[in-house]
Amino acid sequence: MAKDGLNEFKLVGTRPDRPDGLDKVTGRARYGADFSLPGMLWGAVVRSPHAHAKIVKIDATKALAMEGVKAVVTRADFPEGLSGEDWDLQENTIAGEKALYDGHAVAAVAATSKLIAEDAARLIEVEYEVLPHVIDVDDAMAEGAPVIREGAADPTVPEGLHPNVVKYMEFGHGDVEKGFAEADIVREKSYKTEATHQGYIEPHACVGQMGRDDKGEMWVCTQGQWFIRKMCTAVLGVEASQLRVTPSEIGGGFGGKTTIFMEPLSLALSRKAGGRPVKIVMSRSEVLRATGPTASASMDVKIGMKKDGTITGARAEFRMQGGAFPGAPVDMALYCAFAGYKLENVQHIGYDVLANRPKCAAYRAPGSPMGAFAVESLVDEMAAELELDPIAVRQKNAVRSGDKASYGPKFGSIGLVEVLDALKDHPNLQAELGENQGRGFAVGYWFNHNGETSVSMAIGEDGTAQVSIGTPDIGGSRASVSLMVAETLGIPYEDVRVNVVETGALGVNEPTHGSRATFATGKAAVEATGHAIKEMCRRAAAEWGIDEDAVEWVDGAAQPAGPNAGKFPPMTIKEIAGNMGSTGGPISGHHESVPDGVGASFGAHAVDLEVDPETGRVTILRYLVVQDAGRAIHPSYVEGQYQGGAAQGIGWALNEEYVYDDKGRLANPIFLDYRVPVASDLPMIDTVIVEVPNPGHPFGVRGVGETGITPPLPAIANAIADAVGVRMTHLPISPPKLLAALKSR
Amino acid sequence: MAKDGLNEFKLVGTRPDRPDGLDKVTGRARYGADFSLPGMLWGAVVRSPHAHAKIVKIDATKALAMEGVKAVVTRADFPEGLSGEDWDLQENTIAGEKALYDGHAVAAVAATSKLIAEDAARLIEVEYEVLPHVIDVDDAMAEGAPVIREGAADPTVPEGLHPNVVKYMEFGHGDVEKGFAEADIVREKSYKTEATHQGYIEPHACVGQMGRDDKGEMWVCTQGQWFIRKMCTAVLGVEASQLRVTPSEIGGGFGGKTTIFMEPLSLALSRKAGGRPVKIVMSRSEVLRATGPTASASMDVKIGMKKDGTITGARAEFRMQGGAFPGAPVDMALYCAFAGYKLENVQHIGYDVLANRPKCAAYRAPGSPMGAFAVESLVDEMAAELELDPIAVRQKNAVRSGDKASYGPKFGSIGLVEVLDALKDHPNLQAELGENQGRGFAVGYWFNHNGETSVSMAIGEDGTAQVSIGTPDIGGSRASVSLMVAETLGIPYEDVRVNVVETGALGVNEPTHGSRATFATGKAAVEATGHAIKEMCRRAAAEWGIDEDAVEWVDGAAQPAGPNAGKFPPMTIKEIAGNMGSTGGPISGHHESVPDGVGASFGAHAVDLEVDPETGRVTILRYLVVQDAGRAIHPSYVEGQYQGGAAQGIGWALNEEYVYDDKGRLANPIFLDYRVPVASDLPMIDTVIVEVPNPGHPFGVRGVGETGITPPLPAIANAIADAVGVRMTHLPISPPKLLAALKSR
Repeated sequence: MAKDGLNEFKLVGTRPDRPDGLDKVTGRARYGADFSLPGMLWGAVVRSPHAHAKIVKIDATKALAMEGVKAVVTRADFPEGLSGEDWDLQENTIAGEKALYDGHAVAAVAATSKLIAEDAARLIEVEYEVLPHVIDVDDAMAEGAPVIREGAADPTVPEGLHPNVVKYMEFGHGDVEKGFAEADIVREKSYKTEATHQGYIEPHACVGQMGRDDKGEMWVCTQGQWFIRKMCTAVLGVEASQLRVTPSEIGGGFGGKTTIFMEPLSLALSRKAGGRPVKIVMSRSEVLRATGPTASASMDVKIGMKKDGTITGARAEFRMQGGAFPGAPVDMALYCAFAGYKLENVQHIGYDVLANRPKCAAYRAPGSPMGAFAVESLVDEMAAELELDPIAVRQKNAVRSGDKASYGPKFGSIGLVEVLDALKDHPNLQAELGENQGRGFAVGYWFNHNGETSVSMAIGEDGTAQVSIGTPDIGGSRASVSLMVAETLGIPYEDVRVNVVETGALGVNEPTHGSRATFATGKAAVEATGHAIKEMCRRAAAEWGIDEDAVEWVDGAAQPAGPNAGKFPPMTIKEIAGNMGSTGGPISGHHESVPDGVGASFGAHAVDLEVDPETGRVTILRYLVVQDAGRAIHPSYVEGQYQGGAAQGIGWALNEEYVYDDKGRLANPIFLDYRVPVASDLPMIDTVIVEVPNPGHPFGVRGVGETGITPPLPAIANAIADAVGVRMTHLPISPPKLLAALKSR
Repeated sequence: MAKDGLNEFKLVGTRPDRPDGLDKVTGRARYGADFSLPGMLWGAVVRSPHAHAKIVKIDATKALAMEGVKAVVTRADFPEGLSGEDWDLQENTIAGEKALYDGHAVAAVAATSKLIAEDAARLIEVEYEVLPHVIDVDDAMAEGAPVIREGAADPTVPEGLHPNVVKYMEFGHGDVEKGFAEADIVREKSYKTEATHQGYIEPHACVGQMGRDDKGEMWVCTQGQWFIRKMCTAVLGVEASQLRVTPSEIGGGFGGKTTIFMEPLSLALSRKAGGRPVKIVMSRSEVLRATGPTASASMDVKIGMKKDGTITGARAEFRMQGGAFPGAPVDMALYCAFAGYKLENVQHIGYDVLANRPKCAAYRAPGSPMGAFAVESLVDEMAAELELDPIAVRQKNAVRSGDKASYGPKFGSIGLVEVLDALKDHPNLQAELGENQGRGFAVGYWFNHNGETSVSMAIGEDGTAQVSIGTPDIGGSRASVSLMVAETLGIPYEDVRVNVVETGALGVNEPTHGSRATFATGKAAVEATGHAIKEMCRRAAAEWGIDEDAVEWVDGAAQPAGPNAGKFPPMTIKEIAGNMGSTGGPISGHHESVPDGVGASFGAHAVDLEVDPETGRVTILRYLVVQDAGRAIHPSYVEGQYQGGAAQGIGWALNEEYVYDDKGRLANPIFLDYRVPVASDLPMIDTVIVEVPNPGHPFGVRGVGETGITPPLPAIANAIADAVGVRMTHLPISPPKLLAALKSR
C-alpha cells in the first residue's frame, strides 16, 4: 500500500537520505552531553535513598570546603509560592519538606570537574526521618496507606476516598446496564500493567547558564525546548523570554523528554556560581530512578457481546499511579480503551493515585497501551469463547469516519476498516503454526495532537530554502518537512535545509510529542512556504507589470497565468532570489497557529510467537504492523515508527517493569536488569502502510509515532493464550510469571 | 541637546543598563575563540613571505606525515570557474598562481592541537618565484610598475592607463571651470593618507564544520553572519541554505569583519578531515598582514572661493589602492568629499588601483575620512587666507534638507546647520590657547545605509517579548532595539530580550555595517512588533466579540476604542499571552524589507591640541564631537559611537600607518609598532547629540556610527596649522614627520 512509484507527487512519498544522516553516522551530530563551554562546571545531584522520608537537615559544609566546589543548591534556592503543576515540577526537581521517592533530588553541587562534583555530592549530609511508603496503585488507595501529600486531591474526587486519590473521572454514553442486558455473554475481568521506562538510549544531559540578571541559556537534550523554557522559568521564577533553550540532537525521547528534571538545577547552580555554565549528565541509574517512567495500572473491564460478536455494552474502571504527583494518564487510557469500537452504551471510571515513585512522564501514546491491554485481551477471550474470528469481531464493531467515538466526540476521517482489511489479507496470517506457537491480534489507537506551532522559512540568495522549526527531529522530521517544503516550492529536496532552532529564534512551539511533528510542523511549514511563494509571485508580477493575482507558481517558478499566460517566460526561484535585495528585500514566510484538522490513527498488529514450556520464555516468530499513516511523506520513517513502537510494546508485554524492594527502592535501575528488547530478541518487524488521507493536512498526513506501541501488549497476551491456553492478565509476561501460570494450568 | 528628561517617550531616550552588560563584565559573553566542539581540530595558515611571487610548487608531504595532522588544503581544494567578486574572495582566501601580498594565504593545515598545526604549517614547503612588487598607489599607476593582474580592469577604465588601474569614475554637475572663474581665489593642493587598520581588539576567530554532504556550520566573530554565509558558500561552491553561521559576540569590527578571510579555509579543512570541526584563531600579526585594512589615497583638490567664503567651484581627483583586488572606496570618498557643501559646480574623478597589499575591507565610513582630509584641509587653509571664520565658511556653504548633494541626489532631512550652530555655541570654543596650541574644525559626513533586513519577534507565554535580529550587537543595539520594542509594546525594558540569531533561523540580513543597525533593524523590529500588536488586538476583539478595528493598543494592553470605548476593561499583554494557546496559537510578528527612509548624518568636530616643537609630538587638549543622531534611542551608546569614531580618527591622523620594507613586507604587524591611541593618549571626548529627527524612522533615528571618524583627520591638521603654522598634507602626522616639517618651516 506504500505509494512509492504510484504517487501524484514528485517528492512526497519518496525515500531520500535524511539530511542529518551523515551527521549521525560520522559523529558530527551533537547530543546533550556534547556541549562544553569555557569556564564550565559540572553538576552532581544528591538523591534520596528512601522512598518516603522527612528531610530534617541538609549540611553542605564539608562539600563547600572542598577545593573546586563552587556552589550547592537546595530547595531554599528556589522561589516559594508556586502552586499546581508549577509546584509539582519544582518539588520534583528538588525535594522540599519530604523526599517522595527513591532517587528524588534533595540537593545539587557544582564543581570544576565531574569527579569533584560527585565526591562533593557524597559529602553533603542529609538527615532523614524515614516514613512509611507505598508503591502499588491498589495498595496506595487502600485504607491505612501512608498519605503522600495531604490536600493534593482535586475537587473531582468524591468524599470518602483515600487522600492519595487525587483525581476521579466518570464519563460515557448510553445505558451500560441496558447494554449488558442485551448481550448474549457478559464477561468482566481485571488486569494489571507495571510501570515501564521510555528507555531512550541517551540519558538526560544539559548545560545551563544563568547570571544574577536572571538571563540564561541552556543546551539540552529535549523533545521540546519551549517546554523546557516554560517549566524552568516557572520553577526558577524568571521571565520566559530571558531564557534561551537550544535543543541538541536527541537519542530518543518517546515522551520522556517533554519535561524537566535536572535542568533547573543546572541553572540554579550556575546562578549561584557567578554565572559559570554548569553541565549535568545523568547516569542510567539516575534516569531510571528519577526521571519519568509511565504509570502502572490496575484495570477492570466488563463487556457484553452478542453471539455474532456485536458489543452491546462496555465498562472500564482504571486505577493508575503516576508517582508522587498527579498526572497519571488515566484519562487518555480510558479515551483510547474502546476507541476502535462503535458503542451505544459505554461507561468509563478513572482514578489518579499517588504513590512513592518518580513522577510519571509521557511515554508513547500515554495510557493507551494499558487500556488496550485490558480491553483487547477481554475482546479476544470473548471472541474465542464464542468461536468467532477475532479480526471479524473487530471488523463487526469497527468505528468508521463520522461515528461517535467511545469517549464522546465524532470521528473525522479514520481508517480502521481499511487497516483491518489489510491485516486480514496479509501473507503473515497464512503462516503455519506449530506446537506451543500461537497467533494474536489487537487494535490500537492514538488521537494524535496538533499543539502550538510556529514555523518560519526563508529563501536564500541562491534560491535554496531554509525552514526554522521548533520540533526536535527524533524520527526523521527534517526529511519529511524538507520533502513537503521542496514539493510545495517545486525545487529539489537537497535545496532545502530544515533547522531545529532555539527558543530565542522562533515563537512558542510545542514539543515533538503527540505524533504532531510531521502533521503540525509540516502543515505550518507548507503554510509558511505558501506565503513565500505568494511574495515571489508578487515580485514577478511587479517585474512584469501585471497584477499579482495573474501569476501562478509552477515547478519552482512564477509564471503569468490567465489572460497573461505565455506573455513572459517563467521566472525561476533562483532568478527571483538572486534579485530579491533590489526588489523589496528578503523573502520569507511565517506561520503560527494551533493547526486544525488532526487525523487520528488506528493500527492493528498480528503476532506469531512460541512459548518455551520449560522456561516460560516467549520468542516472537513474526510480527506485523498495519497502520493508517494518512500519507507517508517519507515511507521509511513511517515504517521505522511502526517498528519502533512495536518493539517497545513487545518489551512492555514481555519483560520491562520497575521492580521495587521492600524499602521502596528501585531494584533494577540499570539496563542489565531493566530488560528492553535488543535486536537479537526480535525478528524484522513487517509493516504495511495504509493511506487513508487526512483531509485536514495538505498532503494527508496523520501522526504515526504513537499508535504502534499499543497493540503489542494485548496481541502478545492473546497469542500466548492461543499458543498455550493460558490467559495472562498481569504484565510483563516474563518467563517466571508465565512458567508459574503454565505450571498451575 | 540630549533629550533625557525632556522626552515624549517613556523609554526611548533613557539610559538603562545594556542587556549584555553582565555577560560582558563577568566573562559570560562568548567571543569567536570561545567556541569548542567535541573532536575539534585546530587550523593554521601558511602565508606568503613575499609581496609578489609566483607559486611554483607546494609540498605538504612532511606536514601530512606528522602525527596529529588531519588535512592540508591548497587552492586545488576549491572549485574553479568563479568570476568577479567571488573570484576575488576566493583568491584572497587562498592564493592561486601567485601570492599577491605579504601574508597572502597559500595553504592551510588542520591538526589535533594548535601547536601541531603551527608546526605542520612550517613543514609545508612552498617554492616561490619572487616577482617585482609595488606598494604605493602613485607608484602602482606609474609607467613600468609591475602588473598585479592582467585583465582585471573593468570597462570604465580609459585606454592608455596602467593595467593596475581597475576602475575609473568621473561625475559631477555644473561647469567647474566656470565656477573657478567666478572665484576670488582658486587653490589646488595634493594630499596623501596611508592605509590604516580597523584595529579591533578581537582577532578573527572561527570554528567551521562541513561534511562530505556539503552541509556545514560555522561559529564566527563577524559583523554579518549572512555575508559570511554568502561569501563562504560562493568560494566553496556549496548552497547558501546548507551553511548555518552563528555569530559570536564581537570585540570590534568597524567594517573589517564584514568579509571573509580564514573562514572558508576552516570549512575546507573540515570537509577534508572527515567533518571534524576546525578552529582557526588569527594572531595579531596575521590580522595586520592579511585582513583588510583601509585603502591608501593620493588626492588632488581644487577649490574656488569668493572673498565672503562662498565656494564657486570644486574639483577632486582621488587615486586609491585597496590592495591586490578591486574595491578601494574611491567612489565613497568622492561622494562624501564635498557633501557638506552646496555646490553649483563640482567635478569628481576617481581611480581604483591595484598594489601588492592585502585586500582592503570596509573601515568606518569607508573613504569618507580621506576625502574629508583633503577637502576640509583646503577649505580651512583658504578660509585662513581670506581671514574668514572657518565655521562661518562652513555655515555659509552648508547644505540643507532638500538641497542637491555634491554627488547628485537630493538630500532628505539633514541637520548640518543645526550641528554647526551647536558647535559654535559650545564652551570648548571659548577655552584660551597657549603657545604651540591650536584649534581646528572640520565637518564630516556619512550617508548611512539601510540594507536587507529581517526581524522576527514573538510573545512569550508570560507576556514578555523576544526579538530575533540578524545584526550582531557591536555598539549596544540589543539595548536600543529593546528600548524601541518595549516602548512600542508598552512593557518594561527588562521584559524584552533581543537575540542575535544564526543564519538558519531568520531570513537574509545584512551585517551591522553602514550605521544601519539601530535604523534598519530597529525600524523592522518596530514593524514586526506592530504585527504582533495587531494580532493581540484581534485576540482581544474576538474575546470581546467586537470588530478588531475597534480595539487599540495602549500601555501594554488592548482596549476597546471608538464606540466600544470603556465597554470592557483593558486586556493586558500578560492576559493575552497567557491564553494564546487556546485563542489561536503563538503570537509573533515579522518584517522583511530593505527599509526606506535612511537619514544621513553630519557631524562637526573641534579639537584643541598642542605641538611639542622639540619632538613633534601632538597632545590632544580638548576634543568635541557634535553630530546629528536624528534621535538618540540610548544616548550613552550614541555618545560612545561619537567618542569611538573620534578616537579612531585621531589615531589615523597622528600615528597609524602601514609601514612596508623595501621587499614589500609589512614592517609593523604588531600593536607595539602599529600605534593606535590608548586611553592615556586622549582626553575625555566631549559630545553633543543634535537631534533633527529622521522622518523615515518611527523614532527619528539616523545612523551615528561612522560619521565621527571623518572630521578628526582634517580637524587635527587644521589645528596643527593653527598651532605652529605648518600645513601637513600627508597623514599620519607622526612626530618625525611633524618635526621635519617644523624644521623646514
